[in-house]
Amino acid sequence: MSEKEESGYKGEALKAIIKAEAEIGDIIRVTKNGQVYEGILIPRSEYGDEKHIVIKLKNGYNIGIRVTPDTKIEKIGKGVKPAFTPPPPPVQNPELPKVAVISTGGTIASRVDYRTGAVRPALTASDLYSVVPELSDIARIDTQILLSLFSENIEPKHWTEIAKNVAEKIEEGTEGVVVAHGTDTMGYTAAALSFALQNLPVPVILVGSQRSADRPSSDAATNLIGAVTAAAKAPFAEVAVAMHETTSDTAILLHRGTKVRKCHTSRRDAFKSINAPSLARIKDGKITMLTENYRKRDPTKKLVLKPEFSDKVALLKFHPGMNPSIIDWFVEKGYKGIILEGTGLGHVGRYCFESLRNAVKHNVIVAMTSQCIWGRVNMNVYDQGRDLQALGVIPLEDMLPETAVVKLMWIFGQTENVEEAKKLLKTNITGEFSPRTTFDKIGNK
Amino acid sequence: MSEKEESGYKGEALKAIIKAEAEIGDIIRVTKNGQVYEGILIPRSEYGDEKHIVIKLKNGYNIGIRVTPDTKIEKIGKGVKPAFTPPPPPVQNPELPKVAVISTGGTIASRVDYRTGAVRPALTASDLYSVVPELSDIARIDTQILLSLFSENIEPKHWTEIAKNVAEKIEEGTEGVVVAHGTDTMGYTAAALSFALQNLPVPVILVGSQRSADRPSSDAATNLIGAVTAAAKAPFAEVAVAMHETTSDTAILLHRGTKVRKCHTSRRDAFKSINAPSLARIKDGKITMLTENYRKRDPTKKLVLKPEFSDKVALLKFHPGMNPSIIDWFVEKGYKGIILEGTGLGHVGRYCFESLRNAVKHNVIVAMTSQCIWGRVNMNVYDQGRDLQALGVIPLEDMLPETAVVKLMWIFGQTENVEEAKKLLKTNITGEFSPRTTFDKIGNK
Repeated sequence: MSEKEESGYKGEALKAIIKAEAEIGDIIRVTKNGQVYEGILIPRSEYGDEKHIVIKLKNGYNIGIRVTPDTKIEKIGKGVKPAFTPPPPPVQNPELPKVAVISTGGTIASRVDYRTGAVRPALTASDLYSVVPELSDIARIDTQILLSLFSENIEPKHWTEIAKNVAEKIEEGTEGVVVAHGTDTMGYTAAALSFALQNLPVPVILVGSQRSADRPSSDAATNLIGAVTAAAKAPFAEVAVAMHETTSDTAILLHRGTKVRKCHTSRRDAFKSINAPSLARIKDGKITMLTENYRKRDPTKKLVLKPEFSDKVALLKFHPGMNPSIIDWFVEKGYKGIILEGTGLGHVGRYCFESLRNAVKHNVIVAMTSQCIWGRVNMNVYDQGRDLQALGVIPLEDMLPETAVVKLMWIFGQTENVEEAKKLLKTNITGEFSPRTTFDKIGNK
Repeated sequence: MSEKEESGYKGEALKAIIKAEAEIGDIIRVTKNGQVYEGILIPRSEYGDEKHIVIKLKNGYNIGIRVTPDTKIEKIGKGVKPAFTPPPPPVQNPELPKVAVISTGGTIASRVDYRTGAVRPALTASDLYSVVPELSDIARIDTQILLSLFSENIEPKHWTEIAKNVAEKIEEGTEGVVVAHGTDTMGYTAAALSFALQNLPVPVILVGSQRSADRPSSDAATNLIGAVTAAAKAPFAEVAVAMHETTSDTAILLHRGTKVRKCHTSRRDAFKSINAPSLARIKDGKITMLTENYRKRDPTKKLVLKPEFSDKVALLKFHPGMNPSIIDWFVEKGYKGIILEGTGLGHVGRYCFESLRNAVKHNVIVAMTSQCIWGRVNMNVYDQGRDLQALGVIPLEDMLPETAVVKLMWIFGQTENVEEAKKLLKTNITGEFSPRTTFDKIGNK
């Protein structure tokens, strides 16, 4: 192997691999400190160090092993070229609704190359049908690879791009749109699309997977079937997230885009509706609405596209001992808005008050959410809450901190006027505020 | 009423009150826009504006009403001086264990003055017994008012003060310590005491209440009884939080100090053990351990007090579009550590990588937790996680972000040596890491 091959290996790690005459895709055995590891040698990314080699184990996980002078590397099998020939796409049933599937990247949009462990976007229509043949019974699917990003790399500019793309599909007459997305920031993107795509005629469903398609426990297929079913048939026309209801494959929940949050790093039921009921459940192919409070599908409606976002808005989580000068720093940098993730009913330490006063004086909108996640801020119960309001801090009721920062970014994409921005922030635009007393639970039960 | 009285009122609001010849504590009727509000006129804090008056309604809530030219204020009743004569303290049973109750403030430590709505610390022994007479059957109680702070105002220096105070009580031979604390940052303080008070011979129980003692739904008494019971009798010797298990009064849960988080703004069962089982349940006065994995009460043990904390550590919650220069700012300000609250399995956008590299280069410890809250970071699954590790970012397994920032503050209170600090950060000191696979649920069911 040479460095030219762009395997990503360099330094000691590369030397060890060359010595073993191994190439990317070969099966190798690494012996170190009496431990033996066997797997497929996979490439490293540009940020890899010079000390580790990475192999894909039989169980599908990758591990990095540090190459030391006593590490022994043997090539025990030759890599084979992947032979993936998708079946011909099924004949599309003209009676079925048209659904657009837009891929932005993430685990769900990936097909892992079994040989190298490398991940590549795989949502061409034929790939999709080959992985999830059931889809051809639900809808006529038109697929597009728009982005190929792990979702932690998605920025507000990408929300704009996705929103415009969805709008195009809707204007072309598609009967529902599915956006395949990495799960890490899917909640943020769902909120962003909820504000950017107003007066929707049809549903827009974000979907991800927590386990990649090459693992037996993958939720990719079930989630995709749920998302396409919702896009094709759901009676609502809102932005929603489709993911597993529980850790088993029995049901998919649809969560309103402004009220959903990833609450577990790895579980398949990681997404929860917070301070609101879920929108709907899909079980055995049937959609059951879980609330009467939703916007109805209506193809005669005319979509209003408002895709711009400002990046001069920050989310700031308070903690004891937080340096209040950070608030001054945002003001100096020309920020237009700060969403505080305060404690309890919506508080921050009194030692932050002077900086907050300064921010408000400079026309920065400062608004309050709670790091409790569940519940509603109430800044009228204690003096300190009333004092914060007197300083100009705006309480955001039961809005999620993540939704709040997206909303304020969106608001400053629409207007430069601070008073108008404040008014928009307090207005319930797309279900980001729930009415009081309707819902009160923690977790998923 | 004159301004001399320090009612806090000024400007228009003061004028209106003077015109109505009302004083703090009087019952007044405010008529505005056809709405009528009746309640007790209560004082305002130094940060109050000139436009609002605040009254305490019959239901116990305070509301602020903006005084406009058409607002009518009438005095309808004269305030009565509060007549609170605590009963004589009960004769203490010398057979019972000695428990120290240290008050730091917050709702639980407050007795609301019914006349004015003002809140004052009320945890003298006689006050305590008068509010919760059952306590005299559980323990001989020694009370102390150490601080009188709403917990959002508690800073790392207060953790030091509380830890030293608890240590004194333990050295004097008390058989258990209760720390009454505001709920907003009680989780942070519980983590801080867990690190500061090592090799504990007896339990240290933090307790708060979500509803003040003057409301029928108050959880103050039940929580206090639970906390004193645990301090007096629990078989474990750890720092724990005692709060309602459910919204009813049937049971109190004890949560390990490093694994607990306030997950609801107002519910009585707001505190949850995260990524770990609760430590114990108290029901009908009986304590049942819920895990076998705990440190046992042992009066022969010698407490090790390590009460110092550094304030040069920050918690930074990542969000799409976050400005990475904020990381550079912490470096410039001489910060020693940054806890990232990343997405999913422990990621941040690739656009933060250069700033992270710069931080690590300047000997700043950067470590990763997840904003999912539940679950475990795993930075070996995706390239981006491995790349972050290659940059020097340390994965913190299933540690809570809130516990992580407290731990790193504590570590830099113990050492200036970065390598030693890293080693401590990765060491399971007081149950802040749970073993893999033991526990996996979201919420409380």
